[in-house]
Amino acid sequence: MYDCIIVGMGSAGMSAGLYAKRSGMNTLIIDGSAPGGLLNKISIVENYIGVGSISGIDLALKMFEQIRNEEVPYKIETVTSVKNNNDYKIVYTTKGEYKTKTIIFAIGRKPKSSSIPFEEKYKNKGISYCAVCDASLYKNKELVVLGGGNSAFEESLYLSNFASKITIIVKDKISADKELIDDVKSKNINIITGTLVSEFLGDDNITGVRLDNGNIINCSGVFIYYGYIAETSFINNLDITDDGGYILVDNDMKTKIDGIYACGDIIKKNVYQIVTACSDGAIAALSAKKYVTKH
Amino acid sequence: MYDCIIVGMGSAGMSAGLYAKRSGMNTLIIDGSAPGGLLNKISIVENYIGVGSISGIDLALKMFEQIRNEEVPYKIETVTSVKNNNDYKIVYTTKGEYKTKTIIFAIGRKPKSSSIPFEEKYKNKGISYCAVCDASLYKNKELVVLGGGNSAFEESLYLSNFASKITIIVKDKISADKELIDDVKSKNINIITGTLVSEFLGDDNITGVRLDNGNIINCSGVFIYYGYIAETSFINNLDITDDGGYILVDNDMKTKIDGIYACGDIIKKNVYQIVTACSDGAIAALSAKKYVTKH
Repeated sequence: MYDCIIVGMGSAGMSAGLYAKRSGMNTLIIDGSAPGGLLNKISIVENYIGVGSISGIDLALKMFEQIRNEEVPYKIETVTSVKNNNDYKIVYTTKGEYKTKTIIFAIGRKPKSSSIPFEEKYKNKGISYCAVCDASLYKNKELVVLGGGNSAFEESLYLSNFASKITIIVKDKISADKELIDDVKSKNINIITGTLVSEFLGDDNITGVRLDNGNIINCSGVFIYYGYIAETSFINNLDITDDGGYILVDNDMKTKIDGIYACGDIIKKNVYQIVTACSDGAIAALSAKKYVTKH
Repeated sequence: MYDCIIVGMGSAGMSAGLYAKRSGMNTLIIDGSAPGGLLNKISIVENYIGVGSISGIDLALKMFEQIRNEEVPYKIETVTSVKNNNDYKIVYTTKGEYKTKTIIFAIGRKPKSSSIPFEEKYKNKGISYCAVCDASLYKNKELVVLGGGNSAFEESLYLSNFASKITIIVKDKISADKELIDDVKSKNINIITGTLVSEFLGDDNITGVRLDNGNIINCSGVFIYYGYIAETSFINNLDITDDGGYILVDNDMKTKIDGIYACGDIIKKNVYQIVTACSDGAIAALSAKKYVTKH
């Protein structure tokens, strides 16, 4: 019987694993893929205080090195389902099953693909999914933002402090809040609605987007806000998510089920950053520890 | 006029400063003493994921290096008071005054001294103030915990997973919650009440404590939980703290005053760790940024 199984080995999961192991819990981290999660998709991380400027992959490796140095046990297996037996839980994977007193879900989320040709080619070469991370690369440059929801409009406001010109391209209708739309309009940001991008243009780096009406908008960067996929259908039986698949937790990272916690990008919250994910992980592990001490 | 002044340059303040500057805000960090705050009092940090095992001072220096590389402006001055003029605020220091749209308080807190002879001598040589940080140093060793409140009892439970024997020494009466007292008793932890420690004993490292009745309790480590000082009297006029001096904030790190935020150890919350402080700082800065964009 484990004290604590952490599902997911991104930054939240590794921080949780570190705290869980150091708290004396019999701990296991399980993830079906390489350590680091979304970190591995980030070109440069410069806002995680204490590590300076570092590639996402290198930061993931440094975190993983720490997990290994602290001898936090981990298995590379895919979790397929979870059963709650109240005083203990069972985690089923592609390779076996594990009993545990507590579970921490740290499974992250994925940006939705735009399905526009050459998105993969220009990732980290002009295509970004995080204004807070990458805005400073685009000082006095022209940007395109894709999306019509609150994220697209909020992040455009953020980018407007850097870029010389911003064009938001909305596929159908704008779904952002009216207040946000007003704010965006007051910033002299262009909005084009009911228009599809037919392809990303460029050489080594992106230089523009072609619209379905044939027009070309030149830009040095494209920020895509088509939303995220919070893939939690494999734990639908636990009924701990909102309609969008995000796990609902309190300030102690506890779900409504005793002994089940969640942290990082998979939880419903306002700020999705590396440092907030790591903080969530620490809090979740300490909450799990309190539970284990009492049970 | 600054967009954002951050008061305090510990880990929370530096993380806030990094995010604030990178968001494009005209930012200033002000602190009366060396960067790092309480970090400078920690011998070894091993639970901040991504930096491995590092001394508190070295981690503080790495954070400060990042602040300088990002050219976040800072001043070494002591803040004496703050005035809220609603649409802007004034920060008064020993050397001048600064107008700003937003303020983030990141002033930390200090562990209360025990006033027991040789406390200073054995700091980091057996005397600790953080079970989560240092428990793993005391596997199968004997420990003394000083204090009679919830912290002393909660942390003793945590330490009971590591130490072979724990004695809690309570000056007067126990003030911890009954549930915690029951939990502690169930773990076979000794409790001595109504007894003062007259001195810490040892050579290079601590080896025990002498009680006022002359008895000696041998131990390899002493954890002191006499509480913390949340020194916010210089901003009493803002009325944003609880009775203990901690600043009250919502999940966005906002106080009840528009444009005033707080983060790190000075806020009322459940988990006080380096990584949670850094996360708070990031969230506070992004909240301040949203405010500045709208005003």
